[in-house]
Amino acid sequence: MADLDATLHERLASIVGNAHMLTVAAEAEPYVVDWRGRFRGRARAVVRPGNTAEVAAVVRVCTEVGVPVVPQGGNTGLCGGATPHDTGDEIVIALGRMNRLRAIDAANATITVEAGMPLATVQQHAAAAGLYFPLSLASEGSCTIGGNLSTNAGGTAVLRYGNARDLTLGLEIVLADGRVWDGLRGLRKDNTGYDLKQMFIGAEGTLGVVTAAVLKLFPASRTQVTALVAVPAVTAAVALLELLRSALSDRLTGFELVSGIALALSRKLDPALPAPMPGHAWYVLVQGDDNAPDSPIATLLESSLAAAAEAGVACDATIAQSAAQAARLWALRENISEAQRREGPNIKHDISLAVSSIPAFVDACSTALEQSFPGARQIIFGHLGDGNLHYNLSAPENHPAGDFLDHATAVNRIVHDLVARHGGSFSAEHGIGQLKREDLLRYKSDVEVDLMRAIKRALDPRGLLNPGKVL
Amino acid sequence: MADLDATLHERLASIVGNAHMLTVAAEAEPYVVDWRGRFRGRARAVVRPGNTAEVAAVVRVCTEVGVPVVPQGGNTGLCGGATPHDTGDEIVIALGRMNRLRAIDAANATITVEAGMPLATVQQHAAAAGLYFPLSLASEGSCTIGGNLSTNAGGTAVLRYGNARDLTLGLEIVLADGRVWDGLRGLRKDNTGYDLKQMFIGAEGTLGVVTAAVLKLFPASRTQVTALVAVPAVTAAVALLELLRSALSDRLTGFELVSGIALALSRKLDPALPAPMPGHAWYVLVQGDDNAPDSPIATLLESSLAAAAEAGVACDATIAQSAAQAARLWALRENISEAQRREGPNIKHDISLAVSSIPAFVDACSTALEQSFPGARQIIFGHLGDGNLHYNLSAPENHPAGDFLDHATAVNRIVHDLVARHGGSFSAEHGIGQLKREDLLRYKSDVEVDLMRAIKRALDPRGLLNPGKVL
Repeated sequence: MADLDATLHERLASIVGNAHMLTVAAEAEPYVVDWRGRFRGRARAVVRPGNTAEVAAVVRVCTEVGVPVVPQGGNTGLCGGATPHDTGDEIVIALGRMNRLRAIDAANATITVEAGMPLATVQQHAAAAGLYFPLSLASEGSCTIGGNLSTNAGGTAVLRYGNARDLTLGLEIVLADGRVWDGLRGLRKDNTGYDLKQMFIGAEGTLGVVTAAVLKLFPASRTQVTALVAVPAVTAAVALLELLRSALSDRLTGFELVSGIALALSRKLDPALPAPMPGHAWYVLVQGDDNAPDSPIATLLESSLAAAAEAGVACDATIAQSAAQAARLWALRENISEAQRREGPNIKHDISLAVSSIPAFVDACSTALEQSFPGARQIIFGHLGDGNLHYNLSAPENHPAGDFLDHATAVNRIVHDLVARHGGSFSAEHGIGQLKREDLLRYKSDVEVDLMRAIKRALDPRGLLNPGKVL
Repeated sequence: MADLDATLHERLASIVGNAHMLTVAAEAEPYVVDWRGRFRGRARAVVRPGNTAEVAAVVRVCTEVGVPVVPQGGNTGLCGGATPHDTGDEIVIALGRMNRLRAIDAANATITVEAGMPLATVQQHAAAAGLYFPLSLASEGSCTIGGNLSTNAGGTAVLRYGNARDLTLGLEIVLADGRVWDGLRGLRKDNTGYDLKQMFIGAEGTLGVVTAAVLKLFPASRTQVTALVAVPAVTAAVALLELLRSALSDRLTGFELVSGIALALSRKLDPALPAPMPGHAWYVLVQGDDNAPDSPIATLLESSLAAAAEAGVACDATIAQSAAQAARLWALRENISEAQRREGPNIKHDISLAVSSIPAFVDACSTALEQSFPGARQIIFGHLGDGNLHYNLSAPENHPAGDFLDHATAVNRIVHDLVARHGGSFSAEHGIGQLKREDLLRYKSDVEVDLMRAIKRALDPRGLLNPGKVL
């Protein structure tokens, strides 16, 4: 093993250069543990290739000697998909040096970037060309576009623009055998055989290594409107969504459900934030955007909300009168995670359902959780427009910490079983990684798992690409 | 063989019922030849299953005895993907009886339909629920949604809504071994492993049989505007697209390039159609739609066209003042195929390119064709907004018919070689079927063909699903 390692290290170093071959524990540390410190592994080495040919050469050498590889972008994933196992037999391929802009094409409304470019940099290049790349996440300063594509990232603009998958026209992939598939096409229509890029998107590096992508760009938003709406129930929130979608169509870019409890927590964290309509059980934060400079979108939203009030699906509403006011309404929503953290231990879920199933699910889930964990605080909020809820459970007030987190498995089981019963998904936007492999086997049909395994065997017959992730 | 056939027929008849088992040539005729009569085959039998369980049982029996199957929807494809070969050893599975509406969910904006439902019926169900299903093709009265998904159909609304793939949330598939994969999920976000539905969309029945689908619905358009714009050159048309996309964003739903020659042909067919701005080399037909009832979209288009004229990218423009006028402008575009047919033999192409590459491609292609086939008329038109051109060549006036069509292979080679050189696709929206298999092998890299074959082997190891199509 030591001999193999010495030879392997030498071969890899000759590909990427000594400076980009990390074998010392302290140097490798940021690459073997995820940013939250939840998944800690070890690696034979971390290599930092500078271009696609180097990635291909690294994979070829590793395949030759049967050593598994772990592709890694910004290492910001939430499910441990980019962190090595603690066996220490893997090579981490860190793609951060591959961060070049290959092309930007305003007439085709596309950008071609390497996998290691941070998401925020992609957004900046688009903006510099007078266009807009809509993918946006909390970690956008440090996550990379390759990681976003490998996890089919969601984020805040899905209602209008779709997930990372929907923004992708072409990919360049290093395959399990070290060959390069050049699928970097910028075509809106192309029906020449199987759409191979789809298999690599969301595969978390288990089928190939994403090294570059052609992405769609859009006209930038020029007029915005933000409103906070108090609604009497979750059913009303769903009806309001239907009403606003009909009125605003694609100009409805955000529709966030926030429970009264979640909103109160947020204001507890920052009492300076507005509380325009206190005391309601549920709220919806509505965002509208239009790329036209003189859009009547605010008037349209105002009249729609009046119609909603008349129909009994809105109790009250406030429309931001300035960008500063809009930012303060958004802060109420964005603060929730941090506010919840300050309240002590909590158990989180990233679930999705058909929008129409959400009221029945919330009813069933809140009853079941209250029965099993009386007094625990249910912090419910999320992207209702996408059917995506963050359905979290905080310990009852003044509850000892360790004790509550012991219930995590039992709580997950209650929530995810009910999600499955309502036809939903136990991982809406965070993927599987190491964290949710058991859920995948529990909630997917045998047929579906067999299909995934068949695809895995077809594209990675020796099982050396990010093994033990997803499947 | 006779014994095998007798047994096989008996087993299949016991699954679908004698009335839905066609073995007499006259009965089977509509299923063994495509609607244009270009691809004529034979079959052991045509079976018409009435539900998913019957499809699964048919595939199971055929797999057991090693008999290939050809899934067929409306049999309206243009590349022979749904027509059996002339070997006569295949079973055609005609899905027309599976035409039920399974569910429509207005709050989730989804519809669940069986594969054999005609596209126009899907549109009608959506409209009856006050919503809109945007996929629209010339053959929508007879093509089926299963066929649309199996070919990833394009059509007239791609610029705004994407291809059939983009409209699909879930699928139900009968696999090669006769098992059923129930992937009928109506979720906007779901990152639980590989997105399997993507492999079956556009696979032309070579990886599984689509039996049902969950599709996205949208708010209906309530305000429309249509304009015909004369432009000085293809580069100007591309610049106009950029300008209008920036001004109208998703409200720009159609952007069709029409050459002066094509427009003249169209008016020759129907001289009653308008000719508001004769004598220009190129025209663009612009369609705008807004789901808001009182949208300022017409004003917005008018001011944008004024800006375009100022920038030198539009020579002149006329905006329809009524729905009747808009229909007459659209007729100019829609007549072209028929007008071209009346002019005698012609050689057609369905190509796509990055929008920005189109001017250089048109220059190169028109020069090359004029050099090789002097006097032949180049009829250029198509969905410029999607980068999709129908670049057709008609015989010189008064040219004998047979002679010109002898050049089809040479013409295809010139056009498709140039498409490849400009990074484009030789099949934008019609697929591969039997017709373009050689093109696929010629223009795809070995790596890409190997990947497709690996997927095919993984999902159809015995090669019994629509063999000899796509790959």
